[in-house]
Amino acid sequence: MRQQFILLPCLGLFLLSGLVAHADTPDREALMQIAQSLFEPLPEVVDNPDNPVTEAKVELGKMLYYDPRLSKSGFISCNSCHNLATYGVDNLPTSLGHAWAVGPRNAPTVLNAALHDTQFWDGRASDVEEQAQGPVLNPIEMAIPGEGFAVDRIASMPEYVAWFERAFPDESEPLTYANIANAIGAFERTLTTPDRFDDFLRGDADALSDKELAGLQVFINEGCVGCHAGPALGGDVMARFGIVEAYWEATREYITIDQPTMTMDVGRFAVTQNRDDLYVFKTPSLRNITRTYPYFHDGSVWNLRDATQIMARVQLGREIDEDDLDKLMAFYQTLEGEIPEHALRLPVLPASTEHTSRPAFR
Amino acid sequence: MRQQFILLPCLGLFLLSGLVAHADTPDREALMQIAQSLFEPLPEVVDNPDNPVTEAKVELGKMLYYDPRLSKSGFISCNSCHNLATYGVDNLPTSLGHAWAVGPRNAPTVLNAALHDTQFWDGRASDVEEQAQGPVLNPIEMAIPGEGFAVDRIASMPEYVAWFERAFPDESEPLTYANIANAIGAFERTLTTPDRFDDFLRGDADALSDKELAGLQVFINEGCVGCHAGPALGGDVMARFGIVEAYWEATREYITIDQPTMTMDVGRFAVTQNRDDLYVFKTPSLRNITRTYPYFHDGSVWNLRDATQIMARVQLGREIDEDDLDKLMAFYQTLEGEIPEHALRLPVLPASTEHTSRPAFR
Repeated sequence: MRQQFILLPCLGLFLLSGLVAHADTPDREALMQIAQSLFEPLPEVVDNPDNPVTEAKVELGKMLYYDPRLSKSGFISCNSCHNLATYGVDNLPTSLGHAWAVGPRNAPTVLNAALHDTQFWDGRASDVEEQAQGPVLNPIEMAIPGEGFAVDRIASMPEYVAWFERAFPDESEPLTYANIANAIGAFERTLTTPDRFDDFLRGDADALSDKELAGLQVFINEGCVGCHAGPALGGDVMARFGIVEAYWEATREYITIDQPTMTMDVGRFAVTQNRDDLYVFKTPSLRNITRTYPYFHDGSVWNLRDATQIMARVQLGREIDEDDLDKLMAFYQTLEGEIPEHALRLPVLPASTEHTSRPAFR
Repeated sequence: MRQQFILLPCLGLFLLSGLVAHADTPDREALMQIAQSLFEPLPEVVDNPDNPVTEAKVELGKMLYYDPRLSKSGFISCNSCHNLATYGVDNLPTSLGHAWAVGPRNAPTVLNAALHDTQFWDGRASDVEEQAQGPVLNPIEMAIPGEGFAVDRIASMPEYVAWFERAFPDESEPLTYANIANAIGAFERTLTTPDRFDDFLRGDADALSDKELAGLQVFINEGCVGCHAGPALGGDVMARFGIVEAYWEATREYITIDQPTMTMDVGRFAVTQNRDDLYVFKTPSLRNITRTYPYFHDGSVWNLRDATQIMARVQLGREIDEDDLDKLMAFYQTLEGEIPEHALRLPVLPASTEHTSRPAFR
């Protein structure tokens, strides 16, 4: 985690951003150098020495990711809420789960998520492997009654047992609940989405149009980069949502639909009981931000322009003019990447057997 | 529709099956000739002159098939209940729908479904195009409030509008509710699954093992073929379920789980109000039958061996001995086919816009 409180680095970046001239046609080479100091191109795979990414593990993880039998009902898979056909999200304000339960928070995208310092909006899991253990057992998500239940259901299928032996060849007990999550985590570590901004960061000065480049300059100058930096443009800062102004008051103007789940979410405070963590959330990645609507931890804002203005207002105490918002919207387009082909190839799943526990809807 | 009442053709087939010797090692060539007269290899595409299968239409149909925005909630797609990762079914007794409604009948597989003479268990739609119009609007399935709502939602996305123009180039109004279903239907017309039995029917006498061949012989001799013939081994006969004995009584012995939806389903009678149609259902295809559990219109029986014995008992008035059941199980394995690669490649879906109607959970 980079920082809990971000005012100081933000100030530092304001100074840095002064280096970038406010001209209509930005200096491409100068801006590229600054961008290279603030951001990083996406890696192809996000390694984890504790859970090395292997071909067998990724393929197994993909099967589990798409398998609705990891839910009590047999109806909900990881992909139900983190749909790879829609950039790893469900495009719902907050997700639906077992028995049509409506969850309290917006489902973040799995794309590039392995780059984040922590997982979940409140950072309560340290990596994608730990994260993957959560929703399977959560009674309002996939609602599997316990770790043993999940292991038994998967172990009832010989094809899965063989896959676990291939994916975890050095372990005496390859099929464990932790390894179910480790396989899914390994798959997620391959879900990076290279885009035109990467081309720019890698030295192709013409990868961005003038307007997109101007948007990048606004992004840096206005201070957005204070929290949205690094390879994922986010995911490595915990910050109070509403530093200058209460978020839920500023947002009311922009919310146009009923938002039944909108409660005053205390954020990381619920995890730590530390008053400094009140309303603190993980800063989300802005990669593919044009596709991961609706926005914020409660999915209350559908329009990216509105979301940007709200952020400027409640985090930075400023208002971005319409012209600069146009430029930012153009810049965001460059963050729309390619979903890896192997992830989009639906696996054909192993057949259940007479030993496989049956789906239960309640 | 071949036949409503099937006793006579069954008797005819008993006579025909007398030609096949009851030897332990069947005569491959003789059995192949008989099989070729009863069955047909699967075509690659099931044509429909009224809705020609084109590349653009298939690709558009696939996008719609996987798009959860064809449901009111934005959570349920065609693929939710006809999951191509699990052979075009959800492997649930009966399906879940909007607001966790439990449907009354088992979701049949989309694989090879275009070959059926009619669609739905009660044959109330004439083809896959007509079928596809149903679940989208059904309040306990995808629950879209009306045809116009579906069209407006899709029309709000310029990328979809362009696809409809490509897929229906000669039509003045390409994006209609009927064409949404026509595109999905065209996609489904490509979902045939060639298997080893096709190799055998095409002349490869060694495509089946001795035991599988013996199973085919039992299948013919016992009279299963009376209703399960043609390219799909079913799908073209409407038959009373329970000719010799009431289905729900014979089945009670085999049902091991609570079956909350198990009611006395009147079958096609609900469509025609004709007493002859009481308890009449469409005979399902046996292609991929090892994967499309649980079985029957109510999904009440999980075990294929049990399902086979029940069918023999209530439709044919006979009991199949254990040895013959073994052989039938071996034969069924040869009907497990290859799902076409293009269907398994998840499409990346168009982005919603500010004009796209929002998901609603209730």
